[in-house]
Amino acid sequence: MHLGGKIEMSSKHPIRNRDDLSMIYTPGVARVCQAIADNPEDARRLTIKRNSVAVVTDGSAVLGLGNIGPKAALPVMEGKAALFKRFAGIDAWPLCLDTQDTDAIVEIVKAIAPGFAGINLEDISAPRCFEIEARLREALDIPVFHDDQHGTAIVVLAALTNALRVVGKKTEDVRVVMSGAGAAGTAILKLLIAAGVRHAVVADIHGVVHAGRPDLVDADPDSPLRWIADNTNPEGVTGTLKEAVVGADVFIGVSAPNVLDGADVAKMADGAIVFALANPDPEVDPTIARQTAAVVATGRSDFPNQINNVLVFPGVFRGLLDAHSRTVNTEMMLAAAGALADVVLEDEVNPNYIIPSVFNEKVAGAVADAVRNAAKSGEAAVTAATTL
Amino acid sequence: MHLGGKIEMSSKHPIRNRDDLSMIYTPGVARVCQAIADNPEDARRLTIKRNSVAVVTDGSAVLGLGNIGPKAALPVMEGKAALFKRFAGIDAWPLCLDTQDTDAIVEIVKAIAPGFAGINLEDISAPRCFEIEARLREALDIPVFHDDQHGTAIVVLAALTNALRVVGKKTEDVRVVMSGAGAAGTAILKLLIAAGVRHAVVADIHGVVHAGRPDLVDADPDSPLRWIADNTNPEGVTGTLKEAVVGADVFIGVSAPNVLDGADVAKMADGAIVFALANPDPEVDPTIARQTAAVVATGRSDFPNQINNVLVFPGVFRGLLDAHSRTVNTEMMLAAAGALADVVLEDEVNPNYIIPSVFNEKVAGAVADAVRNAAKSGEAAVTAATTL
Repeated sequence: MHLGGKIEMSSKHPIRNRDDLSMIYTPGVARVCQAIADNPEDARRLTIKRNSVAVVTDGSAVLGLGNIGPKAALPVMEGKAALFKRFAGIDAWPLCLDTQDTDAIVEIVKAIAPGFAGINLEDISAPRCFEIEARLREALDIPVFHDDQHGTAIVVLAALTNALRVVGKKTEDVRVVMSGAGAAGTAILKLLIAAGVRHAVVADIHGVVHAGRPDLVDADPDSPLRWIADNTNPEGVTGTLKEAVVGADVFIGVSAPNVLDGADVAKMADGAIVFALANPDPEVDPTIARQTAAVVATGRSDFPNQINNVLVFPGVFRGLLDAHSRTVNTEMMLAAAGALADVVLEDEVNPNYIIPSVFNEKVAGAVADAVRNAAKSGEAAVTAATTL
Repeated sequence: MHLGGKIEMSSKHPIRNRDDLSMIYTPGVARVCQAIADNPEDARRLTIKRNSVAVVTDGSAVLGLGNIGPKAALPVMEGKAALFKRFAGIDAWPLCLDTQDTDAIVEIVKAIAPGFAGINLEDISAPRCFEIEARLREALDIPVFHDDQHGTAIVVLAALTNALRVVGKKTEDVRVVMSGAGAAGTAILKLLIAAGVRHAVVADIHGVVHAGRPDLVDADPDSPLRWIADNTNPEGVTGTLKEAVVGADVFIGVSAPNVLDGADVAKMADGAIVFALANPDPEVDPTIARQTAAVVATGRSDFPNQINNVLVFPGVFRGLLDAHSRTVNTEMMLAAAGALADVVLEDEVNPNYIIPSVFNEKVAGAVADAVRNAAKSGEAAVTAATTL
């Protein structure tokens, strides 16, 4: 199936004779070029820009394989492109970059942007991914979305929303413990806080992140870990992950296999929610976790409640492209998570069904509608503010 | 026809269920990534790299429209990609760059190269196109082909080969006068010289190029015009284009409309050959030229003998890709021109048929075979030399 690649380029129109040729290429194409030269915004109407997304990686953090480089990353990016088409009708093309220099990546993506309506950053290692994304968002007039961060954050928030419905707890009240402070963990945390989570504690391989931890006292104030220390753990919890999960309402793992066992899960609060997302081996065996936790989710397709980015990125980009959005912001992400959660109807939600199937045909459309509406109302708000 | 663009991305395989998904994407794709990480050459077998070409422009010299920028260039690049597929089954994707800085373009194309098996540079203005191409050829292990230069040169040589058959003259003997010393003119000249042309004179807007011309005495020794002065005009002709064409056997125009008139063509040698390739308005009215010249060709589809790059670039890249060639060299270009000329059978050649139609189905295959064989025999020669 992978021989020769999994995607191809196709012409939308047949080229049968000189008339076709002179329309598709010279001399007929000159008229279209001139129209865009006169009004560059017409590129969104008259070219592939309207529906094209660049899937950009430097191959530095591919799946669980790590820094395998741009050529070895290509099969993943092809697969991603195929999913963009299958679930949202988007034309995505992989760009696997032969550099891991932050400045170079920023310049390259800025330079290739004219032909695309969106940039999907993929499998770029932390902390470079944060700076690359932030600088590109600042520089470009098309949305830049790092799926490993924001796609994951959106699907986790959607799943958590429904898991809380199952156990009858409120976002504001729950104590969330997260294992993993990388790109995905940081993004999840930011979106959870935006959604109303007030009690979050994060642990990395050195234990619970708190402002007084020796490695953080002198840390760069702009570092992601410093941001976590400043914006979580209001009670000043210290110690290990295993200590922190005692009494917790929610555990979210985006880290490594088997950091918890059944005894740890048993010590969580009643109605515990466990998202063990490390792939393919979760942070805790989901079957064992399910013996005491009320809701368990993983990234795997062979257990209930698969938390999969495929539920998110096609619909998010469909909405962004349809809205001709120049950015993607927190309001749009919250809207996407809400719409994804609501695909599971109120009377369907149960411990084994907090998130729809990837093949639920309502998903991409619901997410796209929510993002498009959020983009449009954001624009309307900006326009109204400008008018005032 | 141009609304929303003329090309799209397609998945080669249906994604119907979790099994399909787990093969095309995670976790199944990891095995393919690992194979390429272990042996990077496998990317040519296991990914889209095998059949993909990047069509790269900076929008600085688009058709006759000039420097219209990357967005306005996109319709041309889409058309080019559509032609790649139609005539050679190649998956080309346009990259329209938002920079016209030589160093930046070189770095960007180097960086995006891992996902492609060839680079087609397009509509980049001279003299930057020369340096960009030369530096990329040096840096990359995939062929870099500037179609405006080499595609044009190959199709002109093929047409000239058959035109000389019509008039019964030899390449070595004819006096060629060229109007235009830009990217196309320089490339044509180099290939004609490689093919055996010994008497060539070039004129630009300042008249005939010769070593003693004031603007050339102190010119950069690496400048293209200096190269022309040093490698043409052995007789030291001076003066205007109109003076130079008196008695010439061949006129090749890649310059501007109406630089010659019927009286000029009438003063050429018996059996004169006129290629007036400026588009859409040729250097001389072809109907008038035909009154005294033996063979007339243009770039237009509404006159006989259309000299069109579409006859060349699809087959050239098909051959390069099939040979897994790491470069494209003069031997391959000469082979391509010879094969293209030979598509017109000896007993078919006549003043109104020196070059096959774009829709002649033999063309791309014949050109591809010639290029692939030249690439293979070049490799064999290198291997043999290395063995010695």
